[in-house]
Amino acid sequence: MANALRIGLAGLGTVGTGVIQLIEENSALIARRAGRPIIITAVTARDRTKDRGVDLTPYRWVDDMGELATAADVDVVVELVGGSDGPALTLARETIGAGRALVTANKAMIAHHGAELGALADAKGAPLKFEAAVAGGIPVIQGLRDGAAANRIDRVYGILNGTCNFILSAMERDGRDFTDVLADAQAKGFAEADPSFDIDGVDAAHKLSILASLSFGAEIDFAGVDIRGIRKIIAADIAQAQALGYRIRLIGLAEVDGENGGASLFQRVQPCLVPLDHPLANVTGATNAVVAEGNFSGRLLFQGAGAGDRPTASAVVADLVDIARKETGPAFSIPTTELEKLPRATAAHRINKTYLRMLVADRPGVLAEIAAAMRDAGLSIESLIQREVADGSALIAMVTHEAREQAVSDTLAALAGSDSLQGEPMVMHILAN
Amino acid sequence: MANALRIGLAGLGTVGTGVIQLIEENSALIARRAGRPIIITAVTARDRTKDRGVDLTPYRWVDDMGELATAADVDVVVELVGGSDGPALTLARETIGAGRALVTANKAMIAHHGAELGALADAKGAPLKFEAAVAGGIPVIQGLRDGAAANRIDRVYGILNGTCNFILSAMERDGRDFTDVLADAQAKGFAEADPSFDIDGVDAAHKLSILASLSFGAEIDFAGVDIRGIRKIIAADIAQAQALGYRIRLIGLAEVDGENGGASLFQRVQPCLVPLDHPLANVTGATNAVVAEGNFSGRLLFQGAGAGDRPTASAVVADLVDIARKETGPAFSIPTTELEKLPRATAAHRINKTYLRMLVADRPGVLAEIAAAMRDAGLSIESLIQREVADGSALIAMVTHEAREQAVSDTLAALAGSDSLQGEPMVMHILAN
Ligand SMILES: NC(=O)c1ccc[n+]([C@@H]2O[C@H](COP(=O)([O-])OP(=O)(O)OC[C@H]3O[C@@H](n4cnc5c(N)ncnc54)[C@H](OP(=O)(O)O)[C@@H]3O)[C@@H](O)[C@H]2O)c1
Ligand SMILES: NC(=O)c1ccc[n+]([C@@H]2O[C@H](COP(=O)([O-])OP(=O)(O)OC[C@H]3O[C@@H](n4cnc5c(N)ncnc54)[C@H](OP(=O)(O)O)[C@@H]3O)[C@@H](O)[C@H]2O)c1
Repeated sequence: MANALRIGLAGLGTVGTGVIQLIEENSALIARRAGRPIIITAVTARDRTKDRGVDLTPYRWVDDMGELATAADVDVVVELVGGSDGPALTLARETIGAGRALVTANKAMIAHHGAELGALADAKGAPLKFEAAVAGGIPVIQGLRDGAAANRIDRVYGILNGTCNFILSAMERDGRDFTDVLADAQAKGFAEADPSFDIDGVDAAHKLSILASLSFGAEIDFAGVDIRGIRKIIAADIAQAQALGYRIRLIGLAEVDGENGGASLFQRVQPCLVPLDHPLANVTGATNAVVAEGNFSGRLLFQGAGAGDRPTASAVVADLVDIARKETGPAFSIPTTELEKLPRATAAHRINKTYLRMLVADRPGVLAEIAAAMRDAGLSIESLIQREVADGSALIAMVTHEAREQAVSDTLAALAGSDSLQGEPMVMHILAN
Repeated sequence: MANALRIGLAGLGTVGTGVIQLIEENSALIARRAGRPIIITAVTARDRTKDRGVDLTPYRWVDDMGELATAADVDVVVELVGGSDGPALTLARETIGAGRALVTANKAMIAHHGAELGALADAKGAPLKFEAAVAGGIPVIQGLRDGAAANRIDRVYGILNGTCNFILSAMERDGRDFTDVLADAQAKGFAEADPSFDIDGVDAAHKLSILASLSFGAEIDFAGVDIRGIRKIIAADIAQAQALGYRIRLIGLAEVDGENGGASLFQRVQPCLVPLDHPLANVTGATNAVVAEGNFSGRLLFQGAGAGDRPTASAVVADLVDIARKETGPAFSIPTTELEKLPRATAAHRINKTYLRMLVADRPGVLAEIAAAMRDAGLSIESLIQREVADGSALIAMVTHEAREQAVSDTLAALAGSDSLQGEPMVMHILAN
């Protein structure tokens, strides 16, 4: 059997220890499938003394993380430190700069610096792989890069954040409000102490920008993702959606938009209403799922665990197997320098059904005012529920017929400042089936 | 850009013409992703004069299919002729024997001769690829071979035949009987004139045996698949299943069985009752879906179009892209000679809930007789429906509590020959969630 592939592991937290366990537990079968053993030689983290529940004595401890980039006993650096910048980015630059392979689970870093790192990797002929950065254990990077390689992909979308999906599923099941369920999820370890990256949609946006780049052959444009999270969803939204035949999911969606002649890139993360018979409506708990629409394959769905030590380690080691087999091409499927720099698409012309929910003053004329604003904007109603929710307050929830998003904005603009409204209206689009 | 990869295409039917269309339509993006152009140089089929709706004039017509194996203008032979033996097998042997790459969609041939062809391919260093042979456009071979490469896979199962799923979904939707829906499906082109390979489960078994081999590192054992089709399902089964919270799906399932010390291979294709909240319950129409359970990844689901000219072509050309990129290892992930020859597992010790449906004489004492047989076999009832269906006939449908399959066989053996039964009882296991 050929020489072992030697790993330098930076970061020994959730994912790092998962990788150690996997490489120990499955070593024999990995060696058979990869054609050679994959072994860890050197490890590093901040605190050498911390008990991590895994035996670190077989590995050389490195104090200075940067050493891995050039250490003589390392073929591949696995970066599981995290953070878009700082030590992770320094390590990535040094590793690839030294012509050495880098495997990372760091979506923040790839979303922000993927173009730079990809170009460097291509120039140096160094593999750069990040299967674990998107949708945890689901091999969706590979699915797009290889499995769907023959297709023009027109659209890619999915449930990209397990924490949000866990919270939305729990709200659905228990009828409770967001803050309630979040506190519970934090207590149970399904949400971070500072959950904002997850629940405000930033984490999903990191992943979406990577998926879009791979799917469309476009340069990553994380800053171009329109991001909205799930904080403002109330129990009544879930209930109304359900009554109307939908479930609410945080959906990241990217499309090449052909409006106005040229191609532009549309990327949005937002809670959507998903029809009950759409495969994404049945994705509950911390599960992730990605749909890619190819011009020949049709709709492909990849579903599985979106996070966790073991699933994420599965994706990290899949990349290592590819490297061991020397099955590594350009990081973004085509050479990074050939990725197109697509302009950003606007949303006004997009056609959707839309869910609108407003808390309004419970007095005559309010519904007439809203209906008039909708009529003037050319927005018509498919179904509407109005009910009293508290003294002097009513809740109006509706789904519109298909209309341009402009019509929704016009309606909201016309109603802005009206003293009939109590608080901000909630707007969520319906995911087309 | 590097030299073009030159294709010799054998078979110009549904899939063959799909491949021609794909390679024409997506040629620019394929060249970018593959690093070099993929072009068709030579084509062959039985009838040169047939109008196939695609322009064949750019390609050299070959009368003798065997010529492709050694033709000077061909790098890869794509076999889309079909049939487990005959000309397809001859072509495959000659192509690989000549050290040339072979891509095929032919599950029958791989199920029957995969071991021989894989060993020849490994010996000759010739790529042998068959993504399109399992689940049409879904890149599940790659998902197992590469995406899940780091995992011990404990179980693989799924909906592997689009025709059956189309028929079962239609029965479900319309409440009609099998023969009725089949005739309709044939008229609409969703089922072949001779549908037996599909509806008797043979096609699903071909695919299952390939999935099992890849998942477990075991030699293909198509003859070891226990096969039952969907012919005997009646409208009442669908209705009772629905009333009990299930949908009926034809499921191919393979597992490494640890019973009796050593590992043995369990493979079965049969209609099962799938709980409504299982992802496979929501797979309707001609869609396929495969679930693989890895010891680190957890449950991975791959879903998409299981057949059709365009999706199947997508899978064929994905293989060609791999070959163009030189990302090809052993056909079955590990060298064919290292595949284990696993003994066949028996079913008697397997534990399931089971659906039993019997048509019985509508007279006193019949239920008591059945219940006594079940009691004696140690089989207990979770839920039961009995209703009159015709003069002197009643239908009894039930779901048992979990029990060894032996208990079900014992019950049926005790009832065999009883004049209370009208026709064969129907037995379907419940897919565990
Ligand atoms: N957790 C998941 O389920 C998941 C899923 C997909 C992707 N990811 C990504 O995987 C990466 C790692 O995530 P994680 O959950 O494993 O994080 P984590 O549990 O917080 O672990 C981070 C590790 O990095 C080490 N580290 C942090 N700063 C360092 C520094 N300056 N120098 C040296 N070591 C340093 C820490 O050392 P100490 O232990 O000594 O403090 C710790 O071992 C992130 O990019 C994350 O986005 C995670
Ligand atoms: N159809 C699907 O959706 C699908 C999906 C997955 C896998 N597959 C597999 O793909 C393969 C092809 O399926 P298909 O549906 O494309 O079949 P098809 O439409 O029946 O086409 C078969 C082609 O092979 C040619 N052919 C048959 N016998 C021949 C011979 N002795 N010499 C030369 N050419 C011969 C036929 O020539 P003529 O046209 O001149 O008669 C025809 O062009 C099969 O292995 C099938 O199992 C099909």
